[in-house]
Amino acid sequence: MEFTRPAEIERESMRIIDAELAGRGVVLPEEMKTVVRRVIHTTADFDYAENLRFTKDAVPRALAALRGGATIVTDTNMALAGVSKPALRKLGGEALCHMAEPSVAEEAKARGVTRAVVSMDHAAERTPDAVFAVGNAPTALLRLAEHIEDGLRPALVVGVPVGFVNVVESKERALAICERHGVPAIVALGRKGGSNVAAAIVNALLYAAAELTEPEKRNG
Amino acid sequence: MEFTRPAEIERESMRIIDAELAGRGVVLPEEMKTVVRRVIHTTADFDYAENLRFTKDAVPRALAALRGGATIVTDTNMALAGVSKPALRKLGGEALCHMAEPSVAEEAKARGVTRAVVSMDHAAERTPDAVFAVGNAPTALLRLAEHIEDGLRPALVVGVPVGFVNVVESKERALAICERHGVPAIVALGRKGGSNVAAAIVNALLYAAAELTEPEKRNG
Repeated sequence: MEFTRPAEIERESMRIIDAELAGRGVVLPEEMKTVVRRVIHTTADFDYAENLRFTKDAVPRALAALRGGATIVTDTNMALAGVSKPALRKLGGEALCHMAEPSVAEEAKARGVTRAVVSMDHAAERTPDAVFAVGNAPTALLRLAEHIEDGLRPALVVGVPVGFVNVVESKERALAICERHGVPAIVALGRKGGSNVAAAIVNALLYAAAELTEPEKRNG
Repeated sequence: MEFTRPAEIERESMRIIDAELAGRGVVLPEEMKTVVRRVIHTTADFDYAENLRFTKDAVPRALAALRGGATIVTDTNMALAGVSKPALRKLGGEALCHMAEPSVAEEAKARGVTRAVVSMDHAAERTPDAVFAVGNAPTALLRLAEHIEDGLRPALVVGVPVGFVNVVESKERALAICERHGVPAIVALGRKGGSNVAAAIVNALLYAAAELTEPEKRNG
C-alpha cells in the first residue's frame, strides 16, 4: 500500500508508532499518549516513551489554558518556528520568544547571565500565566523554576533541554519544584530533548485543544 | 567542577561526547567527526554515530562551497531558524526556505503535489548550486534527487528527514543518486533525523568554514 498524502502518511505513522509502543509493552493513559506519540513522530526515538514525565493532570490543565488562548513562550526561535500557527490562530493565542530581542542581549551582558535567563525573566514578568516551553537552555529552565518558587504560576512548564552538562539535573530539579507547587509540567528526564521536542509537545497539546482537522493542520 | 559559561559548557559537552564515542569504539575521520559530534550534541543520541553516511569528500567540498558564500536552502522554517546567523554573516551567504511563500501553496494545490516538492522546484531553479538541507519531508528529498538525475549539481545535499513512512527509502535512494552523480551528500540512514539534525549538520559545516570563535558563535 502506498501512502502519498500528508494526512494519510501521518495516520499511518501514528498507527506504526502505536503498534511499536504496544509491542514494547508500553501502556499509557490516552491523554499522555497523544503527547508521547507526537514526540516519537518528531524524533523516531522510542526512548521518549520511557523518559517523559507528566505531573498530575498536566495535560487537561494545559488544554484548558490553551483553549482559553494562553500565550506560549519558547526559549529558542527554532522552537518558536516549530509551533503550529494554524492551531494558534484557531485558539486565539500567540507564541513568543524573547531570545533575539536586543534588550535581552544588553541586559544579559550587564548582569553577567545568559540571554536565556534574561528572556525567562522578561516572560515571567510580561506573560506570567503562559505555557513556558524550554527545549534548549538548562539555565532558562532553572531560572523558571526559581520564579515558580517565588510565586510564578505558569499554565504549563515543558522542560526538555537537551545535552550533557547541567541538563539532567536541571530537569529533575524543575520537575520537583513544579510538583511541589502544583504547577503542571511535562519533562523529558535524562539527556534527551531539544527545540523540536519542545515544539512537538506544544503542538500535540495545541492540536488536541483546537481539534484541528488534517487539512487545517497542514495549512501552514 | 562547575561549568557555567556557554562556551565552557560546549567544550565540556564535546569532551564527554568524544569520550563516549571512544568508549563505544567509534573511530571517525576528523572531518566527519565534526559533523557527527554536533548532531549528537543537538540530540544526545549516539545512534547518529552509526547512521550518518558521507559521500566521498562531502565535507571538504561543502566547506569550499560555504567559504565561497554558498546559499543554504532548507525544507522547513524550523531548520531555517536553527541555522547559525553569525556564521552566515561572516561567510557572506544566506539561508532560505520557500515553504511559507503563498505562491508555493497555490502551485502545490494546482499541481496536486506537496508544498515541499514545489519549494524544492523553486530552489532548484533559483539557487541550483546551494546547500540543500532536508530535515522533514521525504517528498522534498525525492524531488531533489529527481532534479539531480536531470542535471542539478547542488553544493551539498543534507538528507535527514525523520519518520515512519517513505522516509528510510527516500534517504537510501537520494544517497545512491548523489553517489552516482558525484554530488556531495550527508544522509542519516534509518528513521531518525529532523529539522534540528539538518540545522546541526549545516552549523557544524558553517562553524568549520567560518572558523568562528566561541563568542562569535553565541552572538546569535
